[in-house]
Amino acid sequence: MKALPHHYEVSLNWKDDRYGTLTAVSRPAIEGGPPPEFDGRKADWSPEHLLLASVDLCLMTTFMVLSKKKELKIKRYESRISGTLDRTSEGLTFTRILQEVDIEVAAGDVEKTRKLIEAAKKYCLIGNSLKPEIRLDARVRP
Amino acid sequence: MKALPHHYEVSLNWKDDRYGTLTAVSRPAIEGGPPPEFDGRKADWSPEHLLLASVDLCLMTTFMVLSKKKELKIKRYESRISGTLDRTSEGLTFTRILQEVDIEVAAGDVEKTRKLIEAAKKYCLIGNSLKPEIRLDARVRP
Repeated sequence: MKALPHHYEVSLNWKDDRYGTLTAVSRPAIEGGPPPEFDGRKADWSPEHLLLASVDLCLMTTFMVLSKKKELKIKRYESRISGTLDRTSEGLTFTRILQEVDIEVAAGDVEKTRKLIEAAKKYCLIGNSLKPEIRLDARVRP
Repeated sequence: MKALPHHYEVSLNWKDDRYGTLTAVSRPAIEGGPPPEFDGRKADWSPEHLLLASVDLCLMTTFMVLSKKKELKIKRYESRISGTLDRTSEGLTFTRILQEVDIEVAAGDVEKTRKLIEAAKKYCLIGNSLKPEIRLDARVRP
């Protein structure tokens, strides 16, 4: 890890209507706009999808770092994150975020893996930056 | 807008090491991993970059919806979002998020536009879901 603090930057160039292109040095551009639920195009990434992607990717990268430290061999890791957006007294917000993770490891590593994925959730800096509570449903199997 | 609540879903398929592919129905896949600051590859989108992208895109889409309602003609809209990650008593977290927005409108619309971009920040549901405070620096000019 590089010395702290770290600095991250993303640029957004508006194209037309409610659509624009997101760029971050040396990464492929992402076409963004509102989701279909807000009458946007299905081919564009929405703020809602990008937020969920960020949370789910953070859990995985954090988990993989912890697994490497503990010399745990991961056979398979797949996850799905879902978010529910609803109106509350605070306005429109995510009222529920659920991460469902499927992990395959050796039979002797199941318990250790369960602890590590819980630890990864605790240390995930993106999840910790969000106000809505995030539920983790982890299935670990040999 | 479709009836609430809305549901959003993103999937993540682990490839190897700390890298995986993010997908959301009908959108191009995003290759994700840790950022170079955490010894990741420069070509992948990181959780940190995706979070910032989400916040910045939300401001733009919200602003464009408000502008359309007020029949404001936007000539140009560009923005840049930067985030500083540092260690605090709460752990590693974003200590500063700054949105810099450049907007070009007709000379008579400058004041109206300033108010609308402030309103968009207030209503941006992603920004409102984050714990770290977000500063907006909007330059509106004819």
